[in-house]
Amino acid sequence: MVVVMQKGATQDQIQIVQNRLEAEGFNVHLSQGVNRTIMGVIGEPGKIDPQILVSLGGVEKVVPILQPFKLASRDFKHENSTVQVGNCVIGDDQITIVAGPCAVEGREIFLETAWAVKKAGADMLRGGAFKPRTSPYSFQGLGEKGLKIMAEARELTGLPIVTEVMDQKSIAMVAEYADVIQVGARNMQNFFLLRELGKVNKPILLKRGMSATIEEWLMAAEYILGSGNPQVILCERGIRTFETYTRNTLDLSAVPLLKHLSHLPVMVDPSHGTGKRDLVEPMSMAAVACGTDGIMVEVHPDPANAWSDGPQSLIPDDFSKLAQKVRHLKGIYQLDDQSAGRI
Amino acid sequence: MVVVMQKGATQDQIQIVQNRLEAEGFNVHLSQGVNRTIMGVIGEPGKIDPQILVSLGGVEKVVPILQPFKLASRDFKHENSTVQVGNCVIGDDQITIVAGPCAVEGREIFLETAWAVKKAGADMLRGGAFKPRTSPYSFQGLGEKGLKIMAEARELTGLPIVTEVMDQKSIAMVAEYADVIQVGARNMQNFFLLRELGKVNKPILLKRGMSATIEEWLMAAEYILGSGNPQVILCERGIRTFETYTRNTLDLSAVPLLKHLSHLPVMVDPSHGTGKRDLVEPMSMAAVACGTDGIMVEVHPDPANAWSDGPQSLIPDDFSKLAQKVRHLKGIYQLDDQSAGRI
Amino acid sequence: MVVVMQKGATQDQIQIVQNRLEAEGFNVHLSQGVNRTIMGVIGEPGKIDPQILVSLGGVEKVVPILQPFKLASRDFKHENSTVQVGNCVIGDDQITIVAGPCAVEGREIFLETAWAVKKAGADMLRGGAFKPRTSPYSFQGLGEKGLKIMAEARELTGLPIVTEVMDQKSIAMVAEYADVIQVGARNMQNFFLLRELGKVNKPILLKRGMSATIEEWLMAAEYILGSGNPQVILCERGIRTFETYTRNTLDLSAVPLLKHLSHLPVMVDPSHGTGKRDLVEPMSMAAVACGTDGIMVEVHPDPANAWSDGPQSLIPDDFSKLAQKVRHLKGIYQLDDQSAGRI
Amino acid sequence: MVVVMQKGATQDQIQIVQNRLEAEGFNVHLSQGVNRTIMGVIGEPGKIDPQILVSLGGVEKVVPILQPFKLASRDFKHENSTVQVGNCVIGDDQITIVAGPCAVEGREIFLETAWAVKKAGADMLRGGAFKPRTSPYSFQGLGEKGLKIMAEARELTGLPIVTEVMDQKSIAMVAEYADVIQVGARNMQNFFLLRELGKVNKPILLKRGMSATIEEWLMAAEYILGSGNPQVILCERGIRTFETYTRNTLDLSAVPLLKHLSHLPVMVDPSHGTGKRDLVEPMSMAAVACGTDGIMVEVHPDPANAWSDGPQSLIPDDFSKLAQKVRHLKGIYQLDDQSAGRI
Repeated sequence: MVVVMQKGATQDQIQIVQNRLEAEGFNVHLSQGVNRTIMGVIGEPGKIDPQILVSLGGVEKVVPILQPFKLASRDFKHENSTVQVGNCVIGDDQITIVAGPCAVEGREIFLETAWAVKKAGADMLRGGAFKPRTSPYSFQGLGEKGLKIMAEARELTGLPIVTEVMDQKSIAMVAEYADVIQVGARNMQNFFLLRELGKVNKPILLKRGMSATIEEWLMAAEYILGSGNPQVILCERGIRTFETYTRNTLDLSAVPLLKHLSHLPVMVDPSHGTGKRDLVEPMSMAAVACGTDGIMVEVHPDPANAWSDGPQSLIPDDFSKLAQKVRHLKGIYQLDDQSAGRI
Repeated sequence: MVVVMQKGATQDQIQIVQNRLEAEGFNVHLSQGVNRTIMGVIGEPGKIDPQILVSLGGVEKVVPILQPFKLASRDFKHENSTVQVGNCVIGDDQITIVAGPCAVEGREIFLETAWAVKKAGADMLRGGAFKPRTSPYSFQGLGEKGLKIMAEARELTGLPIVTEVMDQKSIAMVAEYADVIQVGARNMQNFFLLRELGKVNKPILLKRGMSATIEEWLMAAEYILGSGNPQVILCERGIRTFETYTRNTLDLSAVPLLKHLSHLPVMVDPSHGTGKRDLVEPMSMAAVACGTDGIMVEVHPDPANAWSDGPQSLIPDDFSKLAQKVRHLKGIYQLDDQSAGRI
Repeated sequence: MVVVMQKGATQDQIQIVQNRLEAEGFNVHLSQGVNRTIMGVIGEPGKIDPQILVSLGGVEKVVPILQPFKLASRDFKHENSTVQVGNCVIGDDQITIVAGPCAVEGREIFLETAWAVKKAGADMLRGGAFKPRTSPYSFQGLGEKGLKIMAEARELTGLPIVTEVMDQKSIAMVAEYADVIQVGARNMQNFFLLRELGKVNKPILLKRGMSATIEEWLMAAEYILGSGNPQVILCERGIRTFETYTRNTLDLSAVPLLKHLSHLPVMVDPSHGTGKRDLVEPMSMAAVACGTDGIMVEVHPDPANAWSDGPQSLIPDDFSKLAQKVRHLKGIYQLDDQSAGRI
Repeated sequence: MVVVMQKGATQDQIQIVQNRLEAEGFNVHLSQGVNRTIMGVIGEPGKIDPQILVSLGGVEKVVPILQPFKLASRDFKHENSTVQVGNCVIGDDQITIVAGPCAVEGREIFLETAWAVKKAGADMLRGGAFKPRTSPYSFQGLGEKGLKIMAEARELTGLPIVTEVMDQKSIAMVAEYADVIQVGARNMQNFFLLRELGKVNKPILLKRGMSATIEEWLMAAEYILGSGNPQVILCERGIRTFETYTRNTLDLSAVPLLKHLSHLPVMVDPSHGTGKRDLVEPMSMAAVACGTDGIMVEVHPDPANAWSDGPQSLIPDDFSKLAQKVRHLKGIYQLDDQSAGRI
């Protein structure tokens, strides 16, 4: 880290900061310019909260230099990590396609959708039993009944299940039924939940928070990794900006950036990322073109009667075309000497 | 709500939408212009998720007209709500000052701070026993031990305690010690937590989420109110924007706006809202000038050794001056015929 | 537009609003619900600034329904517009690749770069003679000397020139040398400049403003179109968000969205959009995959000595690989029955 | 500045960077840690664009340490700057109140408004002759005719005139009539315009761009100051965020922050900053409470018939009350030993 002293900081003030840092075991390199003294501080980051130093007399600012995430970083592990779910390996050279409705609305309609997405080429089945809804007056999910329906669908179709957990209390219950446990955008910084999921032996799909920086997102992954669970999949799902035409702004540059900063597999959710059915296909293609390991798409047999997220859901026929195009595109990439989307 | 049909929508498509709405019990008023047909839809909002209609053929967009919050709205309850905590009434004509350190770091230092803020004129004492930290490597709070220390401080000083709950599991424990239970920004849309807090007989201080719109914030309050707890205090603490000089952008216009939209009391946290000690006093004064019911300020006897939030903490002496100025300013307002900050 | 009256608005207030609207030639459809009266207002949008009505007694809000842009909209012109520059047609089924350095730094280095990008497969040459720089202490461009160098490069290589105009005064000068005149992000709402460019017989490449909504962007295009110049190319170059790892957040969903809303051709600038060299290739591929008509890439033979934008510039060799991959990807799309990126 | 080398950067790469910096006249202090080498670089900032170094092999990132603005900074000039306009001194201990309509709509209505705001206690008169409008179909201002009307109003009332210039070409014309020349938010980074205004002997009121950081804003001021005009007044008018209830998010923390970073006077425009009439008074009070040198308020005798910005305009009576309250509040501050809003 670098400590910048105020213009006019006294020798005493500089000495106090230096002493404090050295007492914590850091090496301090002083650079005295005409206008400012700055200190290069070498040592184990994380030992001291850099912000503390700002409270010392004469300090203007403290600039962290190194990335705060460790276990999630490429520096820590150079090879790509993969996560195995059934026969599916997320993070290898295939594209993984997860599809299904936003919420499990009932047994029959869910089984119908499950067969449809299976037939259309999905690798995994998604569905929500607990739904985080902005309004307390909206449908909140079927709970365990929903989980049981998903388990039945898995048995029938062979597709592994991805579903969201919303609180610590339900972890055991969700883990009993799910193949991949999803952490939603609103829970990305629910640190109690993350820690507990670090103790579960199931892959965790960690969605990016609506206003989370990439650094904060990787720090959330760090909570899970650090508690003992290495099976983390990151999922970009759009961030909140001033633009209102789309529900969120899908930040696809996060994909190659994460591939650079981290070894973890990365997926993209173009349904929540745009909120508009017509944008799901082009943004899925774009996600593949820039190197995603998978996509997660909302599919509903009758969007006009879906209980949630209808406007962003594809009908099975359109999903089927999308899946074909996506696989075709990925196939071309694999023929190239270099994978185009990797940096 | 208003339904806007696409240019070129057929009479059949229009009829299907109208039938669907009438089947749900709405009255539909058709307006056919040269370019577009629009439908004014009258009835109980919330009966149907307006977004569902976008999935019907020929629909261009659906524009909600009424605010989705009910119990939290001024329409529902015209008079200001107040929340009583000990002798303190939040939302009446006094300014309520909550002060204390970010985290409870130990018994002695906390009791020392408690006495200092009491002497300086605080109405309530804040402190964190569970700390949501971006990094898993940062101090996470003392847990129940911290709560016990706060309870001891209350006994000694007589100041009620405000402290954060981070998950459902700890609600009972926190409620045993706290006078006001705080929901932090990262948990503003932890709907399971909100629902449970609706069943607790303690005031809830609901901080605004980092990227929450005012509408989403009031919907979060609606979760608590709708589950049976009317004692909700809103607390503005800054939103995430592109500006990096400040930790967050304190949105003070939220104060008079909330007074207009809702009957709930509103507080402001200028410490988290700015992240800079030097900005705490001016922004506290500004908050009072635009009508806040209270402020919540981080105070630490030795910010340079605080385990968290040092850079935004005041020392007790500076807090004492701030408290005096804030009360002086509020006093002037009360002499005026009209309360200047109210709209 | 829809006018929503306040709860408790009187019959008189409703009548006044209705009279005002009818006096302006609108048809008004009244819908009286239990809680609110709302008015559907049919007629030529733009006749009255809807916001004016908010000032009338009893009005709660005014909700515009139709898009304010006309000439730029798909409703106005259903077929894709194309813009011809030399032999290059932007907006047809080819991908147009514009490449070159940020600024013209000198004759020799620019001619060298021009040959390099020509050889690597660029369709047009970019370069800046006037540079908008955040700091007055940074290099501001060579001015007319830079334009002359670009003209020489065109003569030698045959590549058309794209260059930015920064103010009205220089339009005539820039138009003398340029084949395509660029309006930079900071000038997207320089309405005087836009109007004048509407009178010039040259294609205009209109970059999106850093915090411009898609609607504002299309309204800026409307200024040019409405002043008589139909040759407008839109160029997405990233928007400002809270994320700091990237210089801007490239909003690729704007591409299919613009294709839906407008008939104008759309390009993408992944260099400014990300600010990082390593992200230029993956985001170029993604742009093609979601339907862009072209990309604009910064290339410099010696980025470490570039006077501006070095970190986001490719060396010619890397650009050459990028151009091949981009054309290969586009070719595959054209073989498909349906263009994958179109919606 | 600090240069952070990549993990695994070679001694050669480090040497090349060091040589390059030393060749530019910098002193380089090397700090070699276990994971990374970092270089403290001391010397005149601005000599080299720090971003250039990122293009050198082995460099991970370059972190600028010092603020890039010089003439605008408190470091450069410790005392507050003041700007004199007629009898009014902006930046001394008085509050300056600028009021008037958004646009000059006609002679009679403007003179009526001018008398009204004069009577109500305004110090200066605002009005627009050239209006930047999102839509080409909206009223664009009366041009020179509007300027003449404002000059007549000044003659009659004695109030100095604040009005906007939108392009270089009109500077001479606007300067002939105006006492203070305003640069609007959309032109904050119109660097050609800023440079020319640096050569004019009139005070410049520089509004903050919609998505401008405080650093970029001060750099825009730097353009004017550096071209020879020291009379710059900064004006906060709200930034663009995700919140849609207000037109912009008024960033009042910018006021004390600018007082800390810069010696320039600071004003606040609560009319554009909120877009809602009801918020103008509370936010004006808040602005005074946190240390603004002045406020700029839109006043119209008949907002329901205003040609622009009606919803945020006050009627003269309400403005009169506002002006009294604002002066009363400022008076109280001046009685205090320390000015509460200063840091």
